[in-house]
Amino acid sequence: MGTVTLGASLSCAMPHGPGDRVQLGHGSGGKMSAALLKQCFLPHLGNPTLAALGDGAVVPVEAGEVVVSTDSFVVSPLIFPGGDIGSLAVHGSLNDLAMMGAEPRWLTAGFIIEEGLPVADLSRIVQSMGEAARAAGVPVITGDTKVVERGKGDGLFINTTGIGVRHPRARPGPDRARPGDAILVSGPIGRHGMAIMAARGSLGFESALESDSACLWPMVRDLAELLEGDLHVLRDPTRGGVASALNEIAQASGVGVVLDDGVLPIPGEVNAACEMLGLDPLYVANEGVFVAFCPRARAPEALGILRAHPLGQESAIVGRAVEDHPGYVVLQTAVGAQRVVDLLPGDQLPRIC
Amino acid sequence: MGTVTLGASLSCAMPHGPGDRVQLGHGSGGKMSAALLKQCFLPHLGNPTLAALGDGAVVPVEAGEVVVSTDSFVVSPLIFPGGDIGSLAVHGSLNDLAMMGAEPRWLTAGFIIEEGLPVADLSRIVQSMGEAARAAGVPVITGDTKVVERGKGDGLFINTTGIGVRHPRARPGPDRARPGDAILVSGPIGRHGMAIMAARGSLGFESALESDSACLWPMVRDLAELLEGDLHVLRDPTRGGVASALNEIAQASGVGVVLDDGVLPIPGEVNAACEMLGLDPLYVANEGVFVAFCPRARAPEALGILRAHPLGQESAIVGRAVEDHPGYVVLQTAVGAQRVVDLLPGDQLPRIC
Repeated sequence: MGTVTLGASLSCAMPHGPGDRVQLGHGSGGKMSAALLKQCFLPHLGNPTLAALGDGAVVPVEAGEVVVSTDSFVVSPLIFPGGDIGSLAVHGSLNDLAMMGAEPRWLTAGFIIEEGLPVADLSRIVQSMGEAARAAGVPVITGDTKVVERGKGDGLFINTTGIGVRHPRARPGPDRARPGDAILVSGPIGRHGMAIMAARGSLGFESALESDSACLWPMVRDLAELLEGDLHVLRDPTRGGVASALNEIAQASGVGVVLDDGVLPIPGEVNAACEMLGLDPLYVANEGVFVAFCPRARAPEALGILRAHPLGQESAIVGRAVEDHPGYVVLQTAVGAQRVVDLLPGDQLPRIC
Repeated sequence: MGTVTLGASLSCAMPHGPGDRVQLGHGSGGKMSAALLKQCFLPHLGNPTLAALGDGAVVPVEAGEVVVSTDSFVVSPLIFPGGDIGSLAVHGSLNDLAMMGAEPRWLTAGFIIEEGLPVADLSRIVQSMGEAARAAGVPVITGDTKVVERGKGDGLFINTTGIGVRHPRARPGPDRARPGDAILVSGPIGRHGMAIMAARGSLGFESALESDSACLWPMVRDLAELLEGDLHVLRDPTRGGVASALNEIAQASGVGVVLDDGVLPIPGEVNAACEMLGLDPLYVANEGVFVAFCPRARAPEALGILRAHPLGQESAIVGRAVEDHPGYVVLQTAVGAQRVVDLLPGDQLPRIC
């Protein structure tokens, strides 16, 4: 065969300036996709596994039980006090693994970008994602980007799938609560949901509220090491809040749940904002808090472990599992009055995560 | 404590009729979410692991190399000749695993639903997803649903993450092509992209074109068993088509690629539709075809393996890797003329997958 003149350039097809926006062509899988990948993604998420850029990632595993969790994030707005959709997408999937007693090892990330998203916003969010992943010691090993036309998305949606390795002895499950268990909450509740409301301008006043978005694994790891088989249940009360999480546990385990009013760690600002909006903090989403069930006799040591962590300083024993009223959650006030804390039919706050 | 009257009903909060549509509350994580899950998802995707409905799934693994791939699907329209976004989302991630020489084992699924999507459409798509997953023998082990407001999505986006186990001896990689390799294509090209164009009404004429969306693992498995270490490269030419896939391989391996004009299996209808729209079939997306590189001496046996499969009956040897013009793909005509087949800057056809 003859020689061929190769005049085509393989350099970046679209250098980005400060005002640039994502275009449909960035989702093509062609040169523009490659340029966006090099500019926005690899600098922040880069690691040797991701850099191989195959159709997927290869990771070595020891024999055992692998735990897998997936979550799509559609939070609005994309950037809010205390975090953004990038850090939230990392913490969310890591926490789902932690709630199953699994050490998070790897993350995948899928991005659905609306045409017109400022490239600077995308970069900032991916950077925040990378920082959250590095802080947790969990690499993003493979990813995917798609672009949809303006008006067919909402800036950015992110899916993350977390893969972890199950703790050999701690086996928490939503169906393992037993009458006599104490219920612990690891930190102040309601902050994520109310921070999102504040970012949406729904509060009508200035607020210092910040999302609690955080990786829960370090606290869970220590709790699992302490309690092992006595760690009956772990659950992060995200959408639907503490009330929904406890209802699910009560139903799955066939126990009743009694919450003591007045001992739940609810920040004053969350209470004030909830009162003004007519919301109940028990139903407001959290992204850096978990509830745990363990035998009452072990609760004080467990609380000690939680309080040794920065995220757990306000952790508290907030109630107990009982044989009475299986499947239902009841709030008990100091004067003995009780009310059922039911599962809500729909959303208090849509697009909170 | 006293007794509590439990008047709240835990039955389905929203029975669905034929005209029903997804509402924002279905994404709440509350009763409506649970009802949608029971009606639309569990009947079609159900398996013991998914039915556990925890924050994730637990699966046993043997020690070895696990392969992970993630993909978001934003195809428009949602339902097209030969498939829909549900079956496509299964095949897409399974094929990404297969292209890394990995046996697909598990899938996760994340759904981002636009408020107003007919529940019947969602059910049909999830059913198709379940059928594709069962046909491939790969269960959907965990999932997630989110709902966004009308106008903030486009009916339905699906993310799937595939997890598989790497073949112990076949280790294909985009950087493993060597001068002297033959290039095989496993089946007729261009069908998925042109079926989507037909479904969009862009052809202006009736067409019998159907997407080739299919699981490639059975063919890949047999090829890997035959070739083992001689299976140098596998790639499914999705977005950007055969041309983009070969360009990526040429660049990653530092080889030149020569395609012989006239031997590529291009269906007559694909050719006709492409000519009318001014498209090049080499750049049109496929979802049930792969390209493979192996030493020339082994290509005839490899072709025999492919042709024994229903999907591989039109497989062909379409070119070769050469030392000349590394990083570039060249199409050579029967009369000796050559043209460079470059990577396109952006999209020929947006939202094809």
